[in-house]
Amino acid sequence: MKIKILTLFPNMYNGFLSESIIKRAIDKNLVEFEIIDYRKYSNDKHNHVDDTPCGGGAGMVIRCDVIDRALKDNTNNNTYKILLTPQGNVFNQKIAFDLSKKDEIVLICGHYEGFDERIRSYVDSEISIGDFVLTGGEIPAMAISDSIVRLLDDVIKEDSFMDDSFSNGLLEYPQYTRPIEYNGMKVPDVLLSGDHKKIENYRLKESLRKTYLRRKDLIDKKELSKEEKKLLDEIKKEESI
Amino acid sequence: MKIKILTLFPNMYNGFLSESIIKRAIDKNLVEFEIIDYRKYSNDKHNHVDDTPCGGGAGMVIRCDVIDRALKDNTNNNTYKILLTPQGNVFNQKIAFDLSKKDEIVLICGHYEGFDERIRSYVDSEISIGDFVLTGGEIPAMAISDSIVRLLDDVIKEDSFMDDSFSNGLLEYPQYTRPIEYNGMKVPDVLLSGDHKKIENYRLKESLRKTYLRRKDLIDKKELSKEEKKLLDEIKKEESI
Repeated sequence: MKIKILTLFPNMYNGFLSESIIKRAIDKNLVEFEIIDYRKYSNDKHNHVDDTPCGGGAGMVIRCDVIDRALKDNTNNNTYKILLTPQGNVFNQKIAFDLSKKDEIVLICGHYEGFDERIRSYVDSEISIGDFVLTGGEIPAMAISDSIVRLLDDVIKEDSFMDDSFSNGLLEYPQYTRPIEYNGMKVPDVLLSGDHKKIENYRLKESLRKTYLRRKDLIDKKELSKEEKKLLDEIKKEESI
Repeated sequence: MKIKILTLFPNMYNGFLSESIIKRAIDKNLVEFEIIDYRKYSNDKHNHVDDTPCGGGAGMVIRCDVIDRALKDNTNNNTYKILLTPQGNVFNQKIAFDLSKKDEIVLICGHYEGFDERIRSYVDSEISIGDFVLTGGEIPAMAISDSIVRLLDDVIKEDSFMDDSFSNGLLEYPQYTRPIEYNGMKVPDVLLSGDHKKIENYRLKESLRKTYLRRKDLIDKKELSKEEKKLLDEIKKEESI
């Protein structure tokens, strides 16, 4: 897979590309990154890529001609083009899975006040990473790339992400490791019992409990199995005491 | 304001701290960052900070004793402690505003399979940046820091963020800049009219329209003014044709 990032701040990616799982995936040729500074598509002598908003107002707006030229020079018919904007579809694990199946994507990072509206006609999709405002699209591009790369074949072990939060529509169950007792807080006995059936049951129930207490919206969206429904009924009784 | 980040990958922040608005805010002493590698709190000869999950399963879990020592050494009574986890409260612009009022925050980045559950008892809040899974908390810590820093006094002009998406509960209105015509697409006439009242009205209506079409959930949450209700009724008629 190839991930291209169109940005005005290419140096922001120095750390991101040289650490941890991303670095290992690049070294193993499982993914290729290309960071493109789109200032070179400015076509004016001062290298401006933005201009003041038509109709007035604060800030600067990224010009449509600059992005059009940058896309023409860096994409082909197979490239899936994504504009990063707070007005886009809210990114989630399902979108990460879908994007991880593409051959090539380009992520377009804005900065300042945003993009000229006409740029939206040149892209395949618009993505937001959440209901908050950042100084640019650089961090969202990292977040999206990171979530995609870890889903690519051979990057991490598959059984590591089958248990992830959101993969089954629930928050992950509580995890514990040594020390078994710390400052008076103990690992639950069931996890030390060696009884795999009991442990599995405990984890499903606590995963449901955490999701019910913290993110009821996720429970409402999920189709629960018969067993999950039974456990949820128990949880509701326990939590109302 | 001081922002401390507890991480196992301090080099990931090299680019983030040396570019754009964050760099300028640091240079003007409007914010101070401290990146702390918490591996030094391991207390074992191999510098391990994680261990296998009690009860079995894939991946490694960050140890509670390591984080406890790291927090004791790097926080005081005034430090607001935030654990970054997909199981936390979903970050939004309201939380960004609240955090921008704190004197000192510490952001704790996990990695691998997550945190020992007991770590939750040492923090003031848990934050997720969205319903997707990343390899660690490093990118969420950047996103949260970036969104906070741009809200601090004197970092950017206040009128730049009063119009931001989400600040008034709506997506931002469409922006345009030169060229006035590009590939057959024109800037809407009203924005070139010089009539400020008309422009303001157009922008409010298009902001409502975009939010209604893309993020009806935000409209449902917002208390609409009389004028906004009237405009929304017009939009509903126009969009159903």
